[in-house]
Amino acid sequence: MKRKITLKQIAKELDVSISTVSKSLRNSLEIGEETRLKVQAFAKFYNYKPNNIALSLKNRKTKTIGIIIPEIVHHFFSTVINGIEHVANENGYSVIICLSDDSFDKEVLNMEMLANGSIDGFIMSLSKETQFRGDFHHITEVINQGMPVVMFDRVTNDILCDKVIIDDQYAAYEAVQSLIDKGRKKIALVTTVDYVSVGKLRTDGYIKALLDNDIPFNENLIIKIEDVDTCEITIGKLLEDKAIDAVFAVNELFAVTIIKTANKIGLNVPRDLAVIAFTDGIISKYSTPTITTVSQNGIKMGNKAAKMLIERLESAEDEEDENYKTDVIETHLIERESTS
Amino acid sequence: MKRKITLKQIAKELDVSISTVSKSLRNSLEIGEETRLKVQAFAKFYNYKPNNIALSLKNRKTKTIGIIIPEIVHHFFSTVINGIEHVANENGYSVIICLSDDSFDKEVLNMEMLANGSIDGFIMSLSKETQFRGDFHHITEVINQGMPVVMFDRVTNDILCDKVIIDDQYAAYEAVQSLIDKGRKKIALVTTVDYVSVGKLRTDGYIKALLDNDIPFNENLIIKIEDVDTCEITIGKLLEDKAIDAVFAVNELFAVTIIKTANKIGLNVPRDLAVIAFTDGIISKYSTPTITTVSQNGIKMGNKAAKMLIERLESAEDEEDENYKTDVIETHLIERESTS
Repeated sequence: MKRKITLKQIAKELDVSISTVSKSLRNSLEIGEETRLKVQAFAKFYNYKPNNIALSLKNRKTKTIGIIIPEIVHHFFSTVINGIEHVANENGYSVIICLSDDSFDKEVLNMEMLANGSIDGFIMSLSKETQFRGDFHHITEVINQGMPVVMFDRVTNDILCDKVIIDDQYAAYEAVQSLIDKGRKKIALVTTVDYVSVGKLRTDGYIKALLDNDIPFNENLIIKIEDVDTCEITIGKLLEDKAIDAVFAVNELFAVTIIKTANKIGLNVPRDLAVIAFTDGIISKYSTPTITTVSQNGIKMGNKAAKMLIERLESAEDEEDENYKTDVIETHLIERESTS
Repeated sequence: MKRKITLKQIAKELDVSISTVSKSLRNSLEIGEETRLKVQAFAKFYNYKPNNIALSLKNRKTKTIGIIIPEIVHHFFSTVINGIEHVANENGYSVIICLSDDSFDKEVLNMEMLANGSIDGFIMSLSKETQFRGDFHHITEVINQGMPVVMFDRVTNDILCDKVIIDDQYAAYEAVQSLIDKGRKKIALVTTVDYVSVGKLRTDGYIKALLDNDIPFNENLIIKIEDVDTCEITIGKLLEDKAIDAVFAVNELFAVTIIKTANKIGLNVPRDLAVIAFTDGIISKYSTPTITTVSQNGIKMGNKAAKMLIERLESAEDEEDENYKTDVIETHLIERESTS
């Protein structure tokens, strides 16, 4: 059986990136003429037709929403999906999910695939690599084709569309303030080494809370950690030096690792070390002690994103609204044993 | 814009089930003539055309695999998806995921949607409701249309297709045997009240291990629990009566709840109570004490399911193989603090 040639295969055959193939097929002037014509000729020879189904279905509604998320083994994204599903189903929509694995190429391929007539619109959270590159042409492309996009959590200012976010800066501020209210002064921020926009906002909130309370900001207490294994080593040193009495961790895996490290060297949580984690996952609920968290409210975020997309899909074409909204979901602190 | 009518809307308008609409449109003799003709007339009037895209695309390959799973906030299914993705991507396939939410109707709708030209084949785990009903017509239908299906974990003998399972009976046997080897004699099985086939197999393995070791089987030690809240109450009573010295729990939420309950009444895990959980999720790795588990090996299961599907998709049409295989993934015990 003759196989259909894919974007990926064209990229491989011609030894160029997927992004280059995608842009060349759309005749983007960003790509040099020689490459552009070569890609187009190759695609034509192998009968590659971008969006040919989409064309034939232009006025057909699929009643399906496409979701693109970075990863699936992640409680936050799972709960957002549940939130989207709930509102989608209530309104007679189905949901299709694709994973980018935090890869730019996979995000581009997924959007290409789903935009080919499978769905009416997208709800997405950007991959780390896409945020790092700052290349959003694939998203601009589907929006220009008239397909609405709602972004959540990991968003970009470079794309005009509806967005649902949490106020990461305020959430971090509130968590750190609650630690200060409990008498803690040597508060570490344990965060990841990454290119995700939310990281900077959380750091800003952490610093602001310290300064508002006249606690000097010590750069050494912002700890950027690669993975859970290095977390234990880095935190172990700080604990042994009694350099910290509280930690605000950006995820619950770091938080639970910090608690175990503290226990190993004979420190008690919360007495010697108070711990708050960002994200409300299941580990926090079931660990010993249970962990105080800043809830990201994934369900509510999913609900809201689905509502925004469906409203846009169902508004009459002649009253198309170019005024995109950014909805800020409120977070709240769930107090548990690790700070009480 | 005129909306496309969906199976669901037809079902609602005519006040019949989705299954009835689906079967009527396929002219199944299971449905009475009156209903069948009414559904067909209604669908025709609203221009509903089942699988009309699929027809136009009969010989076109999408290089996409459709996955249908019962739920997403579940570490096991997430890891299976990662396993599928890995092998699919290596072979140039993309992956689309839909959730049944353990609902029969959603499973039928998802398959209908994806079979409409979006994918080349399915990898699926049955919803609880589908297993309870024993209605698999939607799966038979896609297989008859020439679309291969691979089932994993929650499978049925009523459908001939490739399957990937674990030996649930042996896995339970091995776990209970390991508790007996450590001198435990009053071993409870904590399981769910459900219709999932694996539940019975695990119970069989539990009973066989007891009998092989000349430990009398006590029906009162098989505890069927509705949810995590009732788990605490039921187990609390058994622990206070000193009726048990070990527990084999079918999921890690039960296991961690049992450990917390034991701690509350002053019992020590593992000294007074040894605990093993089925499923290797993240809670077990991070709880205090860490929990011994029977690993379901989701990654390997996903790898294998993807390999089986891709082999079938890429075999030449003239050598189509009707000899379906059932692959049994081996489990292994991951010993941690809760039994040491």
